[in-house]
Amino acid sequence: MYKNKGLVAEAFPEELLNRLKGQIAIGHVRFGDGTPPSLSNAQPLTFNYLRGSVALAHNGKLVNGPELRHRLAVNGSIFQSDSEAEIFVNLIARYGQNPLEEALLKCMIDIKGAYALVVMSEKQLIGIRDPNGIRPLCLGKLDDGYVLASESCALDTIGATLIRDVEPGEIVVIDEKGLRSFKTMVPSRRAVCIFEYIYLARPDSTIDGETVNIARREMGKQLAREARPEADLVVPVPDSGTPAAIGYAEATGLPFREGLMKNRYIGRTFIRPSQKIRDVAVRLKLNPIREIVEGKRVILVDDSLVRGTTSKKIIQMLRNTGVKEIHMLITSPPVLYPCYYGVDTSAREDLIAACYDLEGTRKYIGADSLHYLSLDGLLNSFKGSKDRFCTACFNADYIAGKPESHNER
Amino acid sequence: MYKNKGLVAEAFPEELLNRLKGQIAIGHVRFGDGTPPSLSNAQPLTFNYLRGSVALAHNGKLVNGPELRHRLAVNGSIFQSDSEAEIFVNLIARYGQNPLEEALLKCMIDIKGAYALVVMSEKQLIGIRDPNGIRPLCLGKLDDGYVLASESCALDTIGATLIRDVEPGEIVVIDEKGLRSFKTMVPSRRAVCIFEYIYLARPDSTIDGETVNIARREMGKQLAREARPEADLVVPVPDSGTPAAIGYAEATGLPFREGLMKNRYIGRTFIRPSQKIRDVAVRLKLNPIREIVEGKRVILVDDSLVRGTTSKKIIQMLRNTGVKEIHMLITSPPVLYPCYYGVDTSAREDLIAACYDLEGTRKYIGADSLHYLSLDGLLNSFKGSKDRFCTACFNADYIAGKPESHNER
Amino acid sequence: MYKNKGLVAEAFPEELLNRLKGQIAIGHVRFGDGTPPSLSNAQPLTFNYLRGSVALAHNGKLVNGPELRHRLAVNGSIFQSDSEAEIFVNLIARYGQNPLEEALLKCMIDIKGAYALVVMSEKQLIGIRDPNGIRPLCLGKLDDGYVLASESCALDTIGATLIRDVEPGEIVVIDEKGLRSFKTMVPSRRAVCIFEYIYLARPDSTIDGETVNIARREMGKQLAREARPEADLVVPVPDSGTPAAIGYAEATGLPFREGLMKNRYIGRTFIRPSQKIRDVAVRLKLNPIREIVEGKRVILVDDSLVRGTTSKKIIQMLRNTGVKEIHMLITSPPVLYPCYYGVDTSAREDLIAACYDLEGTRKYIGADSLHYLSLDGLLNSFKGSKDRFCTACFNADYIAGKPESHNER
Amino acid sequence: MYKNKGLVAEAFPEELLNRLKGQIAIGHVRFGDGTPPSLSNAQPLTFNYLRGSVALAHNGKLVNGPELRHRLAVNGSIFQSDSEAEIFVNLIARYGQNPLEEALLKCMIDIKGAYALVVMSEKQLIGIRDPNGIRPLCLGKLDDGYVLASESCALDTIGATLIRDVEPGEIVVIDEKGLRSFKTMVPSRRAVCIFEYIYLARPDSTIDGETVNIARREMGKQLAREARPEADLVVPVPDSGTPAAIGYAEATGLPFREGLMKNRYIGRTFIRPSQKIRDVAVRLKLNPIREIVEGKRVILVDDSLVRGTTSKKIIQMLRNTGVKEIHMLITSPPVLYPCYYGVDTSAREDLIAACYDLEGTRKYIGADSLHYLSLDGLLNSFKGSKDRFCTACFNADYIAGKPESHNER
Repeated sequence: MYKNKGLVAEAFPEELLNRLKGQIAIGHVRFGDGTPPSLSNAQPLTFNYLRGSVALAHNGKLVNGPELRHRLAVNGSIFQSDSEAEIFVNLIARYGQNPLEEALLKCMIDIKGAYALVVMSEKQLIGIRDPNGIRPLCLGKLDDGYVLASESCALDTIGATLIRDVEPGEIVVIDEKGLRSFKTMVPSRRAVCIFEYIYLARPDSTIDGETVNIARREMGKQLAREARPEADLVVPVPDSGTPAAIGYAEATGLPFREGLMKNRYIGRTFIRPSQKIRDVAVRLKLNPIREIVEGKRVILVDDSLVRGTTSKKIIQMLRNTGVKEIHMLITSPPVLYPCYYGVDTSAREDLIAACYDLEGTRKYIGADSLHYLSLDGLLNSFKGSKDRFCTACFNADYIAGKPESHNER
Repeated sequence: MYKNKGLVAEAFPEELLNRLKGQIAIGHVRFGDGTPPSLSNAQPLTFNYLRGSVALAHNGKLVNGPELRHRLAVNGSIFQSDSEAEIFVNLIARYGQNPLEEALLKCMIDIKGAYALVVMSEKQLIGIRDPNGIRPLCLGKLDDGYVLASESCALDTIGATLIRDVEPGEIVVIDEKGLRSFKTMVPSRRAVCIFEYIYLARPDSTIDGETVNIARREMGKQLAREARPEADLVVPVPDSGTPAAIGYAEATGLPFREGLMKNRYIGRTFIRPSQKIRDVAVRLKLNPIREIVEGKRVILVDDSLVRGTTSKKIIQMLRNTGVKEIHMLITSPPVLYPCYYGVDTSAREDLIAACYDLEGTRKYIGADSLHYLSLDGLLNSFKGSKDRFCTACFNADYIAGKPESHNER
Repeated sequence: MYKNKGLVAEAFPEELLNRLKGQIAIGHVRFGDGTPPSLSNAQPLTFNYLRGSVALAHNGKLVNGPELRHRLAVNGSIFQSDSEAEIFVNLIARYGQNPLEEALLKCMIDIKGAYALVVMSEKQLIGIRDPNGIRPLCLGKLDDGYVLASESCALDTIGATLIRDVEPGEIVVIDEKGLRSFKTMVPSRRAVCIFEYIYLARPDSTIDGETVNIARREMGKQLAREARPEADLVVPVPDSGTPAAIGYAEATGLPFREGLMKNRYIGRTFIRPSQKIRDVAVRLKLNPIREIVEGKRVILVDDSLVRGTTSKKIIQMLRNTGVKEIHMLITSPPVLYPCYYGVDTSAREDLIAACYDLEGTRKYIGADSLHYLSLDGLLNSFKGSKDRFCTACFNADYIAGKPESHNER
Repeated sequence: MYKNKGLVAEAFPEELLNRLKGQIAIGHVRFGDGTPPSLSNAQPLTFNYLRGSVALAHNGKLVNGPELRHRLAVNGSIFQSDSEAEIFVNLIARYGQNPLEEALLKCMIDIKGAYALVVMSEKQLIGIRDPNGIRPLCLGKLDDGYVLASESCALDTIGATLIRDVEPGEIVVIDEKGLRSFKTMVPSRRAVCIFEYIYLARPDSTIDGETVNIARREMGKQLAREARPEADLVVPVPDSGTPAAIGYAEATGLPFREGLMKNRYIGRTFIRPSQKIRDVAVRLKLNPIREIVEGKRVILVDDSLVRGTTSKKIIQMLRNTGVKEIHMLITSPPVLYPCYYGVDTSAREDLIAACYDLEGTRKYIGADSLHYLSLDGLLNSFKGSKDRFCTACFNADYIAGKPESHNER
């Protein structure tokens, strides 16, 4: 096991990777989940239990994490970190007299929330997706081997082929006997996180049969049916706003222009820890192209409006560049509720749409007009059925429950 | 918590120690106990359990370690290392519904073997000595505070005063209420490791009322009653053979001479991992003083003869320096049996006295004669009663039991 | 709770039943399962655990009962009886931090074997059928209430209507919110005990869509296709041989005659504890009608041949009555293997077909000829698909596994 | 195991006792402890656990019973009764991987309160007395065997000899190797229940070196030093008041007269469940002898005044018989606090001395004067040291703690 801080390309030196022997491997990139960013909280976690060595990595957020942690501690479990993954680890050990796949099945009865899990024993690679399928997990093939990944684009990168998504509530066991699937409890309802399509996933990924890029373009087209301010140009907030802006431009006939250039060497706004750094980061990250936007009435297309601070900065920058009018179009509904399933959208008091009405939000970000895509419009952007998404951040429909203490993180 | 490899003075930088805040601290220097020398096996171990954070360091060896480890694993405990300390850690967590001192009392019912333990919670410092008191642990006072240490010389170093030894089977709890003592099960018999006096402890330490230096000199005097080869000089193998050589010289009237000089910058032979390094180490470590020993009949005094390789090297070096006769005198009986209580004397097949008879051993090390101190003579070297030592390495009287699998490590 | 020995009608006095208050009730009639017939082994078992009072009754046999019992004991569970139901009880308590239905789901992961279970808490009535559906369990409706029963004929008796069979692996929860169903693990294969149709169930019961009486008549018809000894009469061994004899007579055109009269006041041969009592019981139970059978070539139809002792007695009685020829026709294949799923067919050494070949068996029972229905013929007697039965006693296909110790009980 | 309701002599038929085979036996007579008087609560309890069959009987009351019960339930233990003995049973099973005597040692760390315990495995008879020795337990010898009993008079009855009392905190193990003793935690203070001497124990018993009868006579003598109302006679409330009355008469020179006759066929007032039955019981139980008491000034001596109802009835009866004056003398101090250690003195609101002052109490019982023995006077009635009794009912010094919920039962 090797853990390091930094970007993946820098954190794992070539010679280290060459030293790793074996037929199974798992890895994890940590998306800030609220626990301190120490290496002891970094995943995968490894441990020995009754049946040998196991490594485990988890993506998502448990709704009953604190309760389970306390229950385990009451029964004599020890913890070395704050990571939720350690709850899985201790539960697996509790069920150590069962084969690993049965132990995981029992864990799924205990655990509420959103999770995609990869577990590695000395002989098996196991993938699990929560009963509602809130967090994505897909299965690919590379030569004779199998690959599990959160996003299908990861398969492309290594030349693997997407076979299918792991099903909600499915346990996929890969070992020398090949691939076996355990269907567990029938889920209440399939509900993949809609925010994956809006913002989180890379556009070239396909999740549960929907290609992210196509869905985003469709969101732009839907928005064109709902909001048509008078304007000269459609400008995206890159990168996540780009496909929607293209869709919007297509649908309206307005010219699509890349009026904001991205500095490729800066990571996402989202995972910067503190607000201060975020402000600086925006400035470093995006640059208005004066030749394109000066004196123009601009339709600015972004995927979502969470805290509003980024949009405010961008609009300020555009104003300084001499833009005449700025009409802000958001290809998702107002984010009104916190996410308990692993998207770190922050607490309600930080959600701009939960604090101000539409006009107040518009004023705060400094746009000439502000338009959101409706929830219906959003759902209509997908090919398949409309009732298979988690939309809790828009309508508080928490399919996998809420934490017991209603202190909205 | 901070862990590092190397000598204490080098491993803990000044600025690091300055950063440590708080009123309680524990530390550990690892004496090779057979587990791999990785940092994950390094102590103290820290963990969170039902009652909060605990750190723990342990000196000794458990007789039923593997059984307890398996029993814990069957019940769902996880392990991150091979360290025996992790058995204590998991047992404490199992008894987490008891206050820490009661949990430790229960641990003492479970655990067989030799151990001295320091445990630190957020509010308490706790010291424990096994029911037979095989491993030493002493209690000192520094201003208003208390200090626990394996050897009393550590107290002197920091200016603390020795109060008393922790009693066999005693739990000493130090917290804001002061010091409390829990006497636990009445032990079968007090049996402090006699090898502490012969070799392990520093000569300026006092253990259970006997000062090591004085005991060693007395061993030399006892040996003078038992073995009197004709010779010109008494030369110690420094440092542990020195007090006994002085005692022997006093008793016999022969001149005491430091015929072997020690290179102060090399550590002990004992804890070097492999045999190869050991051979080199001996050569680097000791240097014969030709002016003293050339042409002389030398009585060479050493504390013990375990594998015989060190003695063989020394005698070889002395021969090369022109010594006329070498009479090897050992101030302890032949080490015939492995230690299961934490002294890494090695397996029986490596014990020279278990492989050869006296004459065979003499030939192997290359001495002109070889004499051991008798067990009675050894016991007579102490002021107090004679039946309070563990002498298992000499007579296989394993007071705290043997491991179930008789594979002699 | 009230337990008593004897027949149900006698064991539970009217006034006692009148005293019972409440809205939920469960009961159990004990079919000898090899454990001593003491009241402490009688079901239902009642117990208190973390979530309150629970009563439980179980029909079937666990394959890994001893392993689970030992595992529970190792973890501190206590047992008051030898009953397998106590394994369920202790497992439920182990999972006491889960709601009862989730605890039962976890039990189903632990438990291998055949079981139909009714569980009653203070607010719920729960029915469970093992993942292969080996033992039957059906669900009925009576006014506003629900009824669970092993056989549908029990519903008729109390005026309830059969809704459907509980599905293999299904948990049915009945409480004030009505009826909810949890589908659990997808079973390897549906496999209801074929012996229920052959012998165990009452003919007026319907199990998994097949009415027992009709299936038995069909077995007789199938047998007519396979075996046609020359004879004058078809005589059943009542009661379980009767429908098959009728079918056989219909198919062959031979006259059906009740040549053996049953004494209605004696219970089944099957559940008599010892062989001695069994011999007497046969004589008391059946009487040949001389007027019908004397001087005749008789086709004697019985459902199965297990130990052969009953058949031998009957044939002896018929011979003594002056029957000319006796052709024994069995409407099932030879029982060659022990049942590990709750049918107390006895050990292999007692199975007549496992000890003798066809001719040897014929000689042992004293018939002029002996014919078994083939397994294919048996399976063809059912309307639905052929691969949904447990036929392990005929072909050793132990769908739910075998006990670890291969001592064939 | 055999349990029955009623007096011992009637409950266990001769022929039943003759059927019992074996070398070890335990029994229990249930003194009402507040739990319902059903057979399932009757002791001994028997159970199977990891190490085999165990039977257990317990006398006393746990201070942390509900907490332990809940803790066990949380960890998956089941309970069949309300008996505190079942807490011991489940704790023993939890520590099943330890030998029985070590498991009991761990139980003693968990359990707070007053208890005397006999435990029987297939090979051992074990006696335990709580660390303060609140409840008595004595050890006797009969031929080659050992006997454990709550009161030494039981030894006399069967011809055994008292060896000694089991020590506070001692575990006595009797098996084929003879008798071994484990001294456990050093107790905070020895504190045998003083009420045993005042009322509970039979006068011919000797507890911890003090013979009950002698102590009671001495209490009467002490009382003579403290209270001397003018009177003609000293009359005891039989039987427990008799020795004290004799002592009082001796000390004062007043004539001792048995003015109240006891109906020998009625049991003790104390254990009658309800107040109504108690009133009737007093009338049936005691009869004034008119010839002795009529027209006299009587000193009525009783051992204790708990609820006052019995005394009130007796005084009423005596008044009706024409007694001139009644001076009530109690050979113990006012019972002001509830007992949490197994004496069912009832809740505080029922304690007469906790509700009224001395004059109020006198009025309530209808005596002409009322005098209690002082606590010092009581303690001076014993030969040995004065600080080895539990006197919590008089002074609230709860040596073994109080229940967490201060609802005074």
